Amino acid sequence: MSSSFGNRLRVQLFGESHGKAVGAVIDAPPPGEAVDEKELLRFLERRRPGRSPLMSSRNETDYPVFLSGLYEGHTTGTPLTVIMENADARPDSYAGLFSVPRPGHADYAAAVRYQGAADMRGGGHFSARLTAPFCAAGGIALQILERRGIFIGSHIAEIDSVADDPFPLVPDAELFHALADKEIPVLNDEAGRLMKQSILGARSAGDSVGGIVECAAVGFPAGLGSPRFEGADSRIASVLFGIPAVKGVEFGAGFEASRMRGSQNNDPFIVRDGRILTSKNDAGGILGGITTGMPIIVRAAFKPTPSISIPQTTVDLSSMQPAEITLSGRHDPCVVPRAVPVVEAAVALVLLDMLLEG
Amino acid sequence: MSSSFGNRLRVQLFGESHGKAVGAVIDAPPPGEAVDEKELLRFLERRRPGRSPLMSSRNETDYPVFLSGLYEGHTTGTPLTVIMENADARPDSYAGLFSVPRPGHADYAAAVRYQGAADMRGGGHFSARLTAPFCAAGGIALQILERRGIFIGSHIAEIDSVADDPFPLVPDAELFHALADKEIPVLNDEAGRLMKQSILGARSAGDSVGGIVECAAVGFPAGLGSPRFEGADSRIASVLFGIPAVKGVEFGAGFEASRMRGSQNNDPFIVRDGRILTSKNDAGGILGGITTGMPIIVRAAFKPTPSISIPQTTVDLSSMQPAEITLSGRHDPCVVPRAVPVVEAAVALVLLDMLLEG
Amino acid sequence: MSSSFGNRLRVQLFGESHGKAVGAVIDAPPPGEAVDEKELLRFLERRRPGRSPLMSSRNETDYPVFLSGLYEGHTTGTPLTVIMENADARPDSYAGLFSVPRPGHADYAAAVRYQGAADMRGGGHFSARLTAPFCAAGGIALQILERRGIFIGSHIAEIDSVADDPFPLVPDAELFHALADKEIPVLNDEAGRLMKQSILGARSAGDSVGGIVECAAVGFPAGLGSPRFEGADSRIASVLFGIPAVKGVEFGAGFEASRMRGSQNNDPFIVRDGRILTSKNDAGGILGGITTGMPIIVRAAFKPTPSISIPQTTVDLSSMQPAEITLSGRHDPCVVPRAVPVVEAAVALVLLDMLLEG
Amino acid sequence: MSSSFGNRLRVQLFGESHGKAVGAVIDAPPPGEAVDEKELLRFLERRRPGRSPLMSSRNETDYPVFLSGLYEGHTTGTPLTVIMENADARPDSYAGLFSVPRPGHADYAAAVRYQGAADMRGGGHFSARLTAPFCAAGGIALQILERRGIFIGSHIAEIDSVADDPFPLVPDAELFHALADKEIPVLNDEAGRLMKQSILGARSAGDSVGGIVECAAVGFPAGLGSPRFEGADSRIASVLFGIPAVKGVEFGAGFEASRMRGSQNNDPFIVRDGRILTSKNDAGGILGGITTGMPIIVRAAFKPTPSISIPQTTVDLSSMQPAEITLSGRHDPCVVPRAVPVVEAAVALVLLDMLLEG
Repeated sequence: MSSSFGNRLRVQLFGESHGKAVGAVIDAPPPGEAVDEKELLRFLERRRPGRSPLMSSRNETDYPVFLSGLYEGHTTGTPLTVIMENADARPDSYAGLFSVPRPGHADYAAAVRYQGAADMRGGGHFSARLTAPFCAAGGIALQILERRGIFIGSHIAEIDSVADDPFPLVPDAELFHALADKEIPVLNDEAGRLMKQSILGARSAGDSVGGIVECAAVGFPAGLGSPRFEGADSRIASVLFGIPAVKGVEFGAGFEASRMRGSQNNDPFIVRDGRILTSKNDAGGILGGITTGMPIIVRAAFKPTPSISIPQTTVDLSSMQPAEITLSGRHDPCVVPRAVPVVEAAVALVLLDMLLEG
Repeated sequence: MSSSFGNRLRVQLFGESHGKAVGAVIDAPPPGEAVDEKELLRFLERRRPGRSPLMSSRNETDYPVFLSGLYEGHTTGTPLTVIMENADARPDSYAGLFSVPRPGHADYAAAVRYQGAADMRGGGHFSARLTAPFCAAGGIALQILERRGIFIGSHIAEIDSVADDPFPLVPDAELFHALADKEIPVLNDEAGRLMKQSILGARSAGDSVGGIVECAAVGFPAGLGSPRFEGADSRIASVLFGIPAVKGVEFGAGFEASRMRGSQNNDPFIVRDGRILTSKNDAGGILGGITTGMPIIVRAAFKPTPSISIPQTTVDLSSMQPAEITLSGRHDPCVVPRAVPVVEAAVALVLLDMLLEG
Repeated sequence: MSSSFGNRLRVQLFGESHGKAVGAVIDAPPPGEAVDEKELLRFLERRRPGRSPLMSSRNETDYPVFLSGLYEGHTTGTPLTVIMENADARPDSYAGLFSVPRPGHADYAAAVRYQGAADMRGGGHFSARLTAPFCAAGGIALQILERRGIFIGSHIAEIDSVADDPFPLVPDAELFHALADKEIPVLNDEAGRLMKQSILGARSAGDSVGGIVECAAVGFPAGLGSPRFEGADSRIASVLFGIPAVKGVEFGAGFEASRMRGSQNNDPFIVRDGRILTSKNDAGGILGGITTGMPIIVRAAFKPTPSISIPQTTVDLSSMQPAEITLSGRHDPCVVPRAVPVVEAAVALVLLDMLLEG
Repeated sequence: MSSSFGNRLRVQLFGESHGKAVGAVIDAPPPGEAVDEKELLRFLERRRPGRSPLMSSRNETDYPVFLSGLYEGHTTGTPLTVIMENADARPDSYAGLFSVPRPGHADYAAAVRYQGAADMRGGGHFSARLTAPFCAAGGIALQILERRGIFIGSHIAEIDSVADDPFPLVPDAELFHALADKEIPVLNDEAGRLMKQSILGARSAGDSVGGIVECAAVGFPAGLGSPRFEGADSRIASVLFGIPAVKGVEFGAGFEASRMRGSQNNDPFIVRDGRILTSKNDAGGILGGITTGMPIIVRAAFKPTPSISIPQTTVDLSSMQPAEITLSGRHDPCVVPRAVPVVEAAVALVLLDMLLEG
């Protein structure tokens, strides 16, 4: 077993970048939930390549085809399968690459793991292309959560050391929608302008940059999740590290919490309108693995895209001799803008699973 | 299900801080593996409280009693159960606390989750006391791994913003043993001295500090782990977030990778003595969820101990009125020194599971 | 992973027949559920050995000690651990046995599986002794189910070809209690008398007999379980085959259904008091893996106890020469009377898991 | 989660009888395994409808389309997805059926479970149509097992009380192939003739008959599987009960063992050519959940097809009034002949999973 996760709501990904199709099975969403395809397409559009110079020019319609589990616009409650055909696959771009692993990619690790049998064209099953069906699954989860008053949104917290402003203590759906509409989803548009500049600069240098996505979930009830290894943080982190290029995950104050004193970091409990809240949220809405009712705040750090057109040092596995590699395909100079909905999809799928578990 | 993890090697924790005993079931270690109890006790000693002014004065012998799965000094291959009696439980210290949740603790979240039924004396099942049997399980895993040439060690990378020197590219068992023998396991003892000062300062102020543990695993083969959600990073992170007070996890360059360019962050492949290595290790030994054969490098950020004796604002849940709380129990002013073997235990258990899965 | 099962409610067994203790972890029962220890002891008493000439003379008090998860008589909602010490272990009876596998026992299979490292005294982890903590877990589940109007009871349907009368279409709690009070829990006491005779006859011949336990669960709601491999039947069968000596499992008409015509076997739907029922129950309360609201009816076939004092042909593994074995320990001439509550425990644990999953 | 199973090799089914496609994801087969499509089609042909008057006239080509995980004729080691389009779906045949549950079908149970939202045309996700992709998965497993000297085959042990001869103690691949080539795969062709007569008789009466499939796996090593709930028997049974119409499962002597004495039922160990065998195999190759190295023998009891054209009593759920139903679709008068490869697929998938776990 590998490319699946979830307890009550299990998501199974499949497909390779240049194979016939990529897809996901969700086993199983609650029955009778409407799936608004237009809204889903809007969500998928945020991840789709080929829309601007900020991203890969690969042209995929990413149109989700439902093979099962959807009937007359509603979930049936049995396994829901969605696939996306690989329309603009160009396997030729990768001919001859496979004995020369690309630095920063899974090529070498996968060659050992699969004894050379994996279809690694374009990264194969390891490709970020798999985040398309992942987002289809997540987009459906988002709709189901929204219907229950739970909203998830994100901004780019940082690209190439340019930082956005922080989220307010309790962001709302309106803010999330405004962010979703932006090319660079940030709170501070001047920061966004600098981020874009940074990406374009890296692109023209044949290089790439990384960044940090911050995601918030509001309206999620207190008291869900389980202690220890089935905690909300364990489960969200585990799925986020399944997104290509994620190298770090933190909740609330995260790494910064390790530099605080207890008296600063602890969130005081308060009462507002008969509900228990905290006056700040350094815990990121999770204590002991269990939700507190405050917004769940998580940040995922993305490394710079490993595919760059600057020559790199590697090894030719067939001769075991040093080699140089220069990548000429269609690559994102920064995965972060397209990764924003992917992070939301991850959080949505875990939270829906937790909610269904009760 | 909550307090368990693992595929082939499943670990189940149980117990409450002031109940009869805490324990772990490992189902199941490979059969016929010697368990060196002296070595195990040495490992557990590193986590034990009451040894110095740096830590809680709670006096627990932490002596592991094996109920099953160990026969004539070897694992049987059937479920191994180890328990530790709670010798120095002082439930009275907590009387009357339970309607007033402690900031930074799971008290409120757990009260909602368990509808008030959980035994929350001393944090109950959420207590760091559970890391004692967790370390017993991890200590056994470490012995099994060492027998296969896989070594795991750690240093404190940071406490209260005081940073240690970095690990060398490939640390070795000797370094790990030297670190394990130190009160403050650091590479740079001057940094260690400052960290200790910082902890004692926080202690005398009735406050607490946090920090970062960096763990390395060397000798682990390339090609293990699975893509996506069963990747080495997903699985290690998921277990680390099950350790109390962990708020962030990163691999290799981690969050710092998000500030690099691709040309800096990618690790060039090289050949040494017929083996494929990378000349640096910003990937932390994992690409696409699969191990590369380079050291696995992971950092866990611990928040400052939430238990402090400075008065804090909270709410009395019985009256729903604001309240003040001052904690007078026996608490660690910094969990990080005692957390070091806990991080090693987590990494060891996940790696052994991956190794057995093949 | 081996000796565990369950999705939401996970049960982990541990222990060996002649080790320190046997036990079970339940992770995790719903919080705040009262555990009536007297009632639990009454349930365990039905499985306890040493009570009559029908069973092994091993004298175990089987007193359940709770290590965690129970506080002031109620479940906490965190992992509940119960152990039973092995008071009357007599490892000497087994000295020298281990190179000569006993026919009908797991000895040889386990020797290969565990490369000789398992503690196989008295069957070790494979011993029916493990059904003691299994019943402790099941007894708690039964109490939780009863509080929700779900009752589980059993009779011996057959021993050594002597058949009991069938259950009525909808048995009730009163009948279940009456059965539980009998030495041979049957509906037709004349059949019970013959069964007892049969067991005593086998005993005096140094031989053993087998039989069939039929279990019914009433009051369980319709619409629970999942299609295919997570169906109520798949899950119950999977746990029943984990009980030593079970060689067959069937639901409703079971194997007999394969000899019927569709027009006979299909259960007509009817309405009674506004509820949908069926006028007979050849489906055993399960269709397509999902409960129908009718009683769940399952039968488990137990082989005759493999431990007999008649000489048997086997092989000495150390010399690979033919050998003869004569077993002189304390054995049940028929496991069926003591297996009745074990079957109930299995059904209770699966049904509670399904109920919690919703 | 529902329609999936397996530990190391996880199989996820999806699809509805009259939806776009049915399919399976296998996550993940060992890498580099050749998939012989011709052989796979031959295997699928044994399950395909529309081939004779013994079965439903639904005409499905059942052609497997691989969406992922297969590259240049070999498994890649990443999730393998196979789908089959529903070519001859005739949803109109089912119009108006859904408020009137068919006796013996999952209709009512599913209506409660999915609150009316499931696509139940033709049984929807509960349809035996799902066994087509299940067989595709199983057929691949069979090829991988055969390459390792493990062969699986079956005969119809019984239809409508007509019994076939028993398997020899150790059947071989030649016998399995001969059986696979028969319309009614039996050892005794006269029994087969009577079975066929019985099926045709039921068919002309608008009725249906059931039967028993006996499956054997030879060449499977001793010492695999785990004690208790992860035993070979638990896992095989759990998957077999996921096949529509299965109401009973037994291993070796099965229910008949419950009528034997221990001295009869125990299988004596013997040595042959330096290997430990048993001189008979009432255990069905499994003791304590672990394989013994003898053939694994399992029988699955299939109820008569619930779809019959004889009028039946039911209830109209919309009016809650009694109703009569007469089914006129294309149905198998006996599912057993087509179920034979389905049982083999189930056994193959579980055994491959166990083999990979080691």
